Amino acid sequence: MSSTTSINSPIAAIPPQNGWQGLIETYRSYLPVSDRTPVVTLLEGNTPLIPAPALAAQIGKQVQVWVKYDGLNPTGSFKDRGMTMAVSKAKEDGAEVVICASTGNTSAAAAAYARRAGMRAYVLIPDGYVALGKLAQALLYGAEVLAIQGNFDCALSIVREMAEHYPVTLVNSVNPYRLEGQKTAAFEIVDIMGDAPDWLCIPVGNAGNITAYWMGFCQYHQEGRCRQLPRMMGFQAAGASPLVTGVPIDHPETLATAIRIGNPASWQKAMAVKDASQGQFNAVTDEEILEAYRLLASQEGIFCEPASAASVAGLLKVKDQVPAHAKIVCVLTGNGLKDPDTAIKHGNNQFKTGIEPTRAAVAQAMGF
Amino acid sequence: MSSTTSINSPIAAIPPQNGWQGLIETYRSYLPVSDRTPVVTLLEGNTPLIPAPALAAQIGKQVQVWVKYDGLNPTGSFKDRGMTMAVSKAKEDGAEVVICASTGNTSAAAAAYARRAGMRAYVLIPDGYVALGKLAQALLYGAEVLAIQGNFDCALSIVREMAEHYPVTLVNSVNPYRLEGQKTAAFEIVDIMGDAPDWLCIPVGNAGNITAYWMGFCQYHQEGRCRQLPRMMGFQAAGASPLVTGVPIDHPETLATAIRIGNPASWQKAMAVKDASQGQFNAVTDEEILEAYRLLASQEGIFCEPASAASVAGLLKVKDQVPAHAKIVCVLTGNGLKDPDTAIKHGNNQFKTGIEPTRAAVAQAMGF
Repeated sequence: MSSTTSINSPIAAIPPQNGWQGLIETYRSYLPVSDRTPVVTLLEGNTPLIPAPALAAQIGKQVQVWVKYDGLNPTGSFKDRGMTMAVSKAKEDGAEVVICASTGNTSAAAAAYARRAGMRAYVLIPDGYVALGKLAQALLYGAEVLAIQGNFDCALSIVREMAEHYPVTLVNSVNPYRLEGQKTAAFEIVDIMGDAPDWLCIPVGNAGNITAYWMGFCQYHQEGRCRQLPRMMGFQAAGASPLVTGVPIDHPETLATAIRIGNPASWQKAMAVKDASQGQFNAVTDEEILEAYRLLASQEGIFCEPASAASVAGLLKVKDQVPAHAKIVCVLTGNGLKDPDTAIKHGNNQFKTGIEPTRAAVAQAMGF
Repeated sequence: MSSTTSINSPIAAIPPQNGWQGLIETYRSYLPVSDRTPVVTLLEGNTPLIPAPALAAQIGKQVQVWVKYDGLNPTGSFKDRGMTMAVSKAKEDGAEVVICASTGNTSAAAAAYARRAGMRAYVLIPDGYVALGKLAQALLYGAEVLAIQGNFDCALSIVREMAEHYPVTLVNSVNPYRLEGQKTAAFEIVDIMGDAPDWLCIPVGNAGNITAYWMGFCQYHQEGRCRQLPRMMGFQAAGASPLVTGVPIDHPETLATAIRIGNPASWQKAMAVKDASQGQFNAVTDEEILEAYRLLASQEGIFCEPASAASVAGLLKVKDQVPAHAKIVCVLTGNGLKDPDTAIKHGNNQFKTGIEPTRAAVAQAMGF
């Protein structure tokens, strides 16, 4: 790895002639790829870092807050960052099939990248566990979904076995290339801000993403591309907060389904990140998550998945600890369009029907 | 307007220190804004121009095809381009309320930008016409929806009246700033490709977007930022194709709801674009649209709204006319996540249930 760029020209690594080329081309020197790697890309990454002035105002103390809106990745979540790496490396190894056990964002990203690479994509789920709507995106991308008569742990153990015994690449979070791709979100934040933020607030489920961000910040710091490292502030849903309570949870419960995980795969790594960064793990209730979800939409104009809003709910929960003038980034991992049911059920619906079709009646309804 | 940049350094207009600042800052000199305009932005624009090799292979003749995936705008459609302009100008004029008649992407964009600007957003719709799900996004952003006892034309005429008689800004497509914002998509294409494409394929409903793209290409051409102008190839749904048949349609019908329009607002402008660019308008059936929709998802890994797929369906329909070595851009106006029902109903669903939870059974289901 090498960097000839000074700290003052943050995005010089991006080839200016052709615009954004996807995260592998942009951060090639920081990633385990070579000239032999066929890059499978949908031009993921390069997601906006949007100022959140209403959120900053709620905290006061002249802090600045941004959200890293990773829901604007091609399949609608941060999973694309890991999947461009995982599928490119699978293709390099000659794989023709990928497999995962997932009911959500991972299955969509796996299907999109695998199909783009001309590979088949299999998704294992527990029978009767999930509504077709949740899988509609993966199915449209051409995933083949197999519903087994067993639970999710059983599905996970079968996909691992399949990858051991057949020419099939496992793209669940145990795939090491996933975190390599995900760390590029930290690079993008530094490239825009010119340094790492003071705090990074991030939802924590399987704990892979917080691990990946920290890898990214540390790597940039070693290369001299940022002066400081952020405090890593991880937030879990109260009903699925093993990293807060210290014990695995058999039946995690939260409406933030993307972080409904009782025994995180990256548990030890995440604890190490917390210690190394002088960070914290805290829990937020579903009601706090929904309040942050509505606040983001109705005051900042940003529509994210409920799980994403945990980072903002958490920031508001610990706002008394925020130092004055702090620069804070909240990670929004997924697009709100992924979960229309929650928008309908928990929105602040202002809907008046039966209005007479006249200017006067409409004016009255509008308060004029 | 001025441009000091040569044709060989296409994206030099973007301030490199801070990354993408939204389309108004990036293309300020090409837009009717001034220092007094409060820029209301979600960092819209800068959407990926994704190579579509599977599509190119279907055409042959060594053509190159890209899709401009505008579904990755902040609210999930190209409407954000117009809305950042319309709401910024409304704010400049001191407006505190915006209004539109819309059941789809316009209402979502209007609500997001208005609420971000601290303004109220009203959406008028016909009573009983639309399911809550279609409006969930706008409602979550904080839109106030008024359902009137009248049809859509009636709603449109009332919002026009409201804007005339009350301090309310109309942000429907008659708002002239909308097209100004939308033309920046053409700028982005040229900035990435280094020139305009040979063909631009685009879905046509109200005909505003094709008009805006042409404005953008012509403006860049006048400034010397592109050498050529594209042929503008517009595609309408067969059940809503007044620009093809030459007569307005009283009851337009197509599952591509975003282009289900019988009497386009920009009819005359669109006909002028067709003539000036030596372009064409053609109709595609719903079945052709769905085939393109499935092809984009399952071969390119790109999930768009059904209406967006009309551009690709159209390109495939007229592929015999494509010149060898042509460079073609298809515009995808909206994100497929906006319309999960179509994904479920018209996907190529490969879903096997009741599989025994063993490696052997799964291997058999996978064809090993």
